[in-house]
Amino acid sequence: MKVGFIGLGNMGSAMASSLLNAGHEVTVHNRTASKAQPLVDQGAKYARQIADACRGDAVITMLADDAALENVVFGSGGVLENLGKGAIHISSSTISVALSDRLSAAHEKSGQVYVSAPVFGRPEAAASAKLFVAAAGKPEALDACNPIFDAIGQKTFRFGDKPSLANVVKLSGNFLIASVIESLSEAMALVSKAGLNQREYLDFLTSTLFNAPVYKTYGGLIVDKKFTPPGFVAPLGLKDVRLTLAAGESLRVPLPLASLIRDRFLTLLARGGESLDWSAISQVAAQDSGQATFPK
Amino acid sequence: MKVGFIGLGNMGSAMASSLLNAGHEVTVHNRTASKAQPLVDQGAKYARQIADACRGDAVITMLADDAALENVVFGSGGVLENLGKGAIHISSSTISVALSDRLSAAHEKSGQVYVSAPVFGRPEAAASAKLFVAAAGKPEALDACNPIFDAIGQKTFRFGDKPSLANVVKLSGNFLIASVIESLSEAMALVSKAGLNQREYLDFLTSTLFNAPVYKTYGGLIVDKKFTPPGFVAPLGLKDVRLTLAAGESLRVPLPLASLIRDRFLTLLARGGESLDWSAISQVAAQDSGQATFPK
Amino acid sequence: MKVGFIGLGNMGSAMASSLLNAGHEVTVHNRTASKAQPLVDQGAKYARQIADACRGDAVITMLADDAALENVVFGSGGVLENLGKGAIHISSSTISVALSDRLSAAHEKSGQVYVSAPVFGRPEAAASAKLFVAAAGKPEALDACNPIFDAIGQKTFRFGDKPSLANVVKLSGNFLIASVIESLSEAMALVSKAGLNQREYLDFLTSTLFNAPVYKTYGGLIVDKKFTPPGFVAPLGLKDVRLTLAAGESLRVPLPLASLIRDRFLTLLARGGESLDWSAISQVAAQDSGQATFPK
Amino acid sequence: MKVGFIGLGNMGSAMASSLLNAGHEVTVHNRTASKAQPLVDQGAKYARQIADACRGDAVITMLADDAALENVVFGSGGVLENLGKGAIHISSSTISVALSDRLSAAHEKSGQVYVSAPVFGRPEAAASAKLFVAAAGKPEALDACNPIFDAIGQKTFRFGDKPSLANVVKLSGNFLIASVIESLSEAMALVSKAGLNQREYLDFLTSTLFNAPVYKTYGGLIVDKKFTPPGFVAPLGLKDVRLTLAAGESLRVPLPLASLIRDRFLTLLARGGESLDWSAISQVAAQDSGQATFPK
Repeated sequence: MKVGFIGLGNMGSAMASSLLNAGHEVTVHNRTASKAQPLVDQGAKYARQIADACRGDAVITMLADDAALENVVFGSGGVLENLGKGAIHISSSTISVALSDRLSAAHEKSGQVYVSAPVFGRPEAAASAKLFVAAAGKPEALDACNPIFDAIGQKTFRFGDKPSLANVVKLSGNFLIASVIESLSEAMALVSKAGLNQREYLDFLTSTLFNAPVYKTYGGLIVDKKFTPPGFVAPLGLKDVRLTLAAGESLRVPLPLASLIRDRFLTLLARGGESLDWSAISQVAAQDSGQATFPK
Repeated sequence: MKVGFIGLGNMGSAMASSLLNAGHEVTVHNRTASKAQPLVDQGAKYARQIADACRGDAVITMLADDAALENVVFGSGGVLENLGKGAIHISSSTISVALSDRLSAAHEKSGQVYVSAPVFGRPEAAASAKLFVAAAGKPEALDACNPIFDAIGQKTFRFGDKPSLANVVKLSGNFLIASVIESLSEAMALVSKAGLNQREYLDFLTSTLFNAPVYKTYGGLIVDKKFTPPGFVAPLGLKDVRLTLAAGESLRVPLPLASLIRDRFLTLLARGGESLDWSAISQVAAQDSGQATFPK
Repeated sequence: MKVGFIGLGNMGSAMASSLLNAGHEVTVHNRTASKAQPLVDQGAKYARQIADACRGDAVITMLADDAALENVVFGSGGVLENLGKGAIHISSSTISVALSDRLSAAHEKSGQVYVSAPVFGRPEAAASAKLFVAAAGKPEALDACNPIFDAIGQKTFRFGDKPSLANVVKLSGNFLIASVIESLSEAMALVSKAGLNQREYLDFLTSTLFNAPVYKTYGGLIVDKKFTPPGFVAPLGLKDVRLTLAAGESLRVPLPLASLIRDRFLTLLARGGESLDWSAISQVAAQDSGQATFPK
Repeated sequence: MKVGFIGLGNMGSAMASSLLNAGHEVTVHNRTASKAQPLVDQGAKYARQIADACRGDAVITMLADDAALENVVFGSGGVLENLGKGAIHISSSTISVALSDRLSAAHEKSGQVYVSAPVFGRPEAAASAKLFVAAAGKPEALDACNPIFDAIGQKTFRFGDKPSLANVVKLSGNFLIASVIESLSEAMALVSKAGLNQREYLDFLTSTLFNAPVYKTYGGLIVDKKFTPPGFVAPLGLKDVRLTLAAGESLRVPLPLASLIRDRFLTLLARGGESLDWSAISQVAAQDSGQATFPK
């Protein structure tokens, strides 16, 4: 397929690379042009303007937040103005449910197709095309996107016609991961102050009831205090919890555990953890029990 | 080995049965004698008095709470008075860290050996000898207990010389399970009110990042609202969270997520959920978002 | 003074009336024109267009939320386009800190003066000109506004040059009131289930350590379950907590009690309390302890 | 009246002194005898044994916690063994509802009278006989105690026949005070990081809606960071919240705000605040927002 790709951060670059590996014709665009070079070396075309990334069958956006995506789509010279009739905008960014609904309406009005397809997986998974894709949108549009999803992920899950449902899945999924981090953080604070070895405790957990990737990955980061370089940086973790809470608020669904996690992120950021991996919220439980002085 | 077994609830009966299956000579005791019959039919001796269960190499206790175990051990005619010098008391009940420390000191003073060996697994796992055993105590005592642990469980993990450390592992482990229940409950409340199918959502979770028994088991119970008959009844869930919080309090470790879960249990019990499985705390998140009227 | 007044809800109408009582020349505007009639009868002029309310020394806005105020100020034909050079926009609405900062910059750029002056007090206090005014802005601008503040309130407090500081005072003040409601709600749930009479308990509190208007007012509403007609309707309470949390988020200040209160509001709204007074969040604590079936 | 007084801490000494000032015949007892000297100098008799404090019309106990009171009452040579038939035990300690119920039953069985009469007020109030007394018990017993209550307090409130109801009032009252501390702490963290002066903000609050002693007292301590010497030391604050939560747990009343406050106390204690006034929990909100390094 002929696809545009806008947003070349850690995740986006890896996904675009997977598309090239799968034989797609990819035109990439990024605000900071230099990030496109490795992909150009790999065979991508570089689009100086957003418009030049919108001339194919589909354009994929993978941006940091609502504001960035709004700019790219609704801004002058943006995707909405330039995407062809019947072409597809695949939004893979973790954005708000409200913005996803707004994009859905705007693209429909412009005769374009909107598909929401956020992904699960850290940068390592993106690099090896092992992401999980959570997709929602019109069935025929999702069918058309299959070659793209297959190129970037190991499996695609469909969640219905309404694109923003995929965003609900993504946001709630990230909330569940953050819940694992918080629960492990509290348990680790307790067991280590009681005199247990955190590593042995984690090995026990992950070889019994908690034998899942998410416990192994995040348990390891917490035990090793390996928060840098960040796989997923703390302010983005805060953003996702905020968007989850916002979805809950508009639907009238209180989420007290999400509220607790939000406060942990704010504490981490207030104490200097802006550039750490989001698993560093574990240090709040450690500090609150008098066991750590990190980050400050 | 020649072992006594005191406490024949769901879990205890299954464990005693496993011991018989493995060829051990088992003498059982229970406050309500009738519960012993199936085990007697299977080959166990029945001890009318606690003393008669204390004449072997070891006696195992599997009781509901601190008060029941205190009674059985410290009461007149209890384990402490009757267990032989050098014989082992294996405590598998989920009890407080404080009581475990007190038992440790009392048995040592009486020339007996105390081992803490709480188990992980629901009644089905106990029935098939697939429990995980978390053991702590003197290495030679744990070695001596190995045939017992092998008979009831699929794997034994050792957590050092101090018996109460195994209780910290058990309590924090149950807290982690309760955290899974709470996080899934909130996520399910959100996604279902947004319009997603809970079953499809769960299938997605458990075939991707949350591919662990605990998510499958509890996710299934939550989606099916299958809270009766209870595998682990709500008031016992509350008890375990209370003991976790008590351990945290004496160690000066705040556990805000455990506090939140405690409040969920109280709400469930206040609304009539005394006899439901502990996964029924999921109904609190459902009700708070206006989606359920159960239990009341 | 010659002043415009935009926004004639419960609070705004009472404030505009106070201005008339104090002898000011008042031109009022409201989206729903009929609400202006009593004030016209009292001597006010009616402005069909926003522009017509902007021709005096100052224009006061008292609107429901950020969106309404943004519309009125930044919209076509709005305050920003029409207010004279050197004239003052007094914003008394409870709005976000971020919007207050944006208004400050926009008015400065347009050669106008921006003062933030939210007020404390329920509609009864507004009707008797007994509000407390929390004002911030340039000292000479505040001096110029004194006759207005004196007309609507019993006392004015100044919080510095930066207008949004008054919004921080207003939002945190409302958070403190909501905290009183929540703490009383939990205490009332406890004492009534224990067997105490709520009214006697409240009398004790308010004649000893909690001898403050806020405990008397809200304690009375809670004990009497008098949630309708609302003095301050629940969705506005939620809005204010949200804005407090948003201010905390941008400043990196976690506010766990505010998070808890937010969840109480969402529960109330999910259960059907949209049109009740915000003190009805007390019913959540009552219901969670199995003591009430109201609102549903 | 002829009264015994057991427990001469800050509060107890001041209360015993007030009794002497009012002309009562007072026999005092304390584990550490030296603390009795100032009262002996003021005219009290010293009781070497608990028994010697139990020979009058009534004995008042004012001890640190459940364990201390259990010891004094149920221990060998204790109050229960020595108090005369028909004589009154007035318990003013802040104890659990459960212990109060147990005392009630035990004294009744022994032909003695039990009255629960916890007091509100910091040591300064006790020294000037300005306490508020929350009393419960048989009406004729309360009548008989009136001269004692009048001697120590400015006003007595009766809460019915069941003594433990007065303990519910005391515990929930302390919870309400702690709620004021927590809410002010969060508000202060927010406003100071926003750039407001904490003192001016407090003056505003306490001269408007929050014009109550509790806001003035605790607001002042928080703004001045005056946590030592403690008027009420942090571990006692934790104890009271724990007892409030325990009362809620046995009645099935979730108290999420009390849970939050409990965690604040644990954080304070884990960070080295054992000897500070309970208002020092305000430093947790300050630290979590990156604004303080105290106590550590």
